[in-house]
Amino acid sequence: MAGGIGSRFWPLSVPQYPKQFIDILGCGKTLIQMTVDRFQGICPMENFWVVTNEKYVDIVRAQLPEIPVGHILAEPSARNTAPCIAWACRMIHESDASANVVVTPSDAIVMDVPEFRRVISGALDFTADSDAIVTIGIRPSRPETGYGYVECAQSACPGSEIRKVLAFKEKPCAQVAAEYVSKGNYLWNAGIFVWNVKTISESIRRYEPQIAGIMDLIAQGGNVQELFPQCNKISIDYAVMEPASLAGNVYTFPADFGWSDLGNWASLYDRLDHDAHGNAAVGNVHLYECSDCVVHTASATKVVLQGLDGYIVSEKDGQILVCRRSEEQRIRDFSQN
Amino acid sequence: MAGGIGSRFWPLSVPQYPKQFIDILGCGKTLIQMTVDRFQGICPMENFWVVTNEKYVDIVRAQLPEIPVGHILAEPSARNTAPCIAWACRMIHESDASANVVVTPSDAIVMDVPEFRRVISGALDFTADSDAIVTIGIRPSRPETGYGYVECAQSACPGSEIRKVLAFKEKPCAQVAAEYVSKGNYLWNAGIFVWNVKTISESIRRYEPQIAGIMDLIAQGGNVQELFPQCNKISIDYAVMEPASLAGNVYTFPADFGWSDLGNWASLYDRLDHDAHGNAAVGNVHLYECSDCVVHTASATKVVLQGLDGYIVSEKDGQILVCRRSEEQRIRDFSQN
Repeated sequence: MAGGIGSRFWPLSVPQYPKQFIDILGCGKTLIQMTVDRFQGICPMENFWVVTNEKYVDIVRAQLPEIPVGHILAEPSARNTAPCIAWACRMIHESDASANVVVTPSDAIVMDVPEFRRVISGALDFTADSDAIVTIGIRPSRPETGYGYVECAQSACPGSEIRKVLAFKEKPCAQVAAEYVSKGNYLWNAGIFVWNVKTISESIRRYEPQIAGIMDLIAQGGNVQELFPQCNKISIDYAVMEPASLAGNVYTFPADFGWSDLGNWASLYDRLDHDAHGNAAVGNVHLYECSDCVVHTASATKVVLQGLDGYIVSEKDGQILVCRRSEEQRIRDFSQN
Repeated sequence: MAGGIGSRFWPLSVPQYPKQFIDILGCGKTLIQMTVDRFQGICPMENFWVVTNEKYVDIVRAQLPEIPVGHILAEPSARNTAPCIAWACRMIHESDASANVVVTPSDAIVMDVPEFRRVISGALDFTADSDAIVTIGIRPSRPETGYGYVECAQSACPGSEIRKVLAFKEKPCAQVAAEYVSKGNYLWNAGIFVWNVKTISESIRRYEPQIAGIMDLIAQGGNVQELFPQCNKISIDYAVMEPASLAGNVYTFPADFGWSDLGNWASLYDRLDHDAHGNAAVGNVHLYECSDCVVHTASATKVVLQGLDGYIVSEKDGQILVCRRSEEQRIRDFSQN
């Protein structure tokens, strides 16, 4: 899934070129390239599918030239994750009705890639011959209020690390998040799902027949430009995960592989290296008397900052932001005014 | 004179494209263009001469296309103001031995241009038929420690506003500057000189025969590239003004035409319009909870600043500076590290 517009990282991320296509860590690879690399040894390049907005297709082709061009699905408009996943899974079903599928965002990061591969492989084994839906659950390292949570059973299925999901929980307030973390059987919902294509196809048909019907028309050669925008605009969590969990069909693999959705500057700051004064900087950045700053410059050849404490400094293609870290939730507004 | 490198305004001003060639006020004209405009009605375009470093000749030609190409003198190296003025005046002398000359920096600003013209015209009248040297003295509006001062006689010459110069004074400390301002007969030395070409030629031959000798060789067709760099590196103040004032030959026109040399960010800040929070900004700049900032962006298409109090923010061609206004004397170092 590579359709997000990443407006919280303006001007580094702009709607014409959003976060998943940016080398946000300054490591030489973009987030979507790192996401693909993460599946090395699990999925060959010819089995990748990318669903993205039609305006990003050229970027995907340029950044992932080994993915078959026909596997890049161009959404005419954003309809949230359920239509996106339904479309990709329908296409996969056409070519292999027994496929085992991982759905992943393209803009998260994982620090411990071997552990990630072990977890994903375990989940794939679990779903290969069953109608289980597995969502990867991240063991929470802090009472984060920015993520949804998965409540799971206290013990794992026999002979497995996988546990039954009891409920999905919306983003909590701070107090509730602290309770979740203390309880031990609440995990962050990373939005990474594992299932076989038969399971997801049947689930969508059962819980979202409107979307399944449109996918039937698209599979029969219908006009994507006309049909896709008619899909209900709904997340896979609401459309499938919640009803399926009530039906007892959803599982989670509690995992700890250094995951972050890089959803905001705070999480990027956490993932970057820091100097002795707590500054994290990407680019040719010279800091004097600065502390606790996070700086990301993409186009600038030289940046000098003096006397800043606790600021975000971001630059790309002639747009510049300097903003207190405590005010980052306003960046989306800043970008639009 | 247009040879300065303007390193105090980095990155707005860079050695490849310094301050005098920049629209520093965001008014649509560069400082050198405004300087030329200021002489409208005093000096026709074909009588302008520009002395600049050889690397700026193309910029001068582009910004001042009406000045004869042969009147742009390209210094192979910077030798301070005495060789610069000696060369231009020697060239002027070759074409008109009775010329009356104004020497001016190209990077200062003047707010009251009609008054400037009145003062310059008065000074030119004074030097047309005499061997007087007139330096324009600016009535000080504050005890500035960044300028040199001219001490002049308490009263003007009969029938004139022009007074005899008693002494040139180096940049003073704050206490001495306050004394100067209180005394009333101390003026800022703006570096604008008026004299006829015979006077300056004879003065240079008398006080700086080394430079005069090199100009003889250049006037005879000698190689400027070889000869000019051999000139003593000395300012016109030390070379001519001080000895000539001891000889009783230097005068000043006390003036008040809103002059600033824009020598630093503080003086630029003073000259720009301010918003209700004391911010002065040039460019497409959006300010939130900012106060007392001075912002100049030249290339950026959009700049958002939040929560900055008392900062300089400057940008050009992919170089960015954010720095406390109190630390501006370090900018030159920032630009080089």
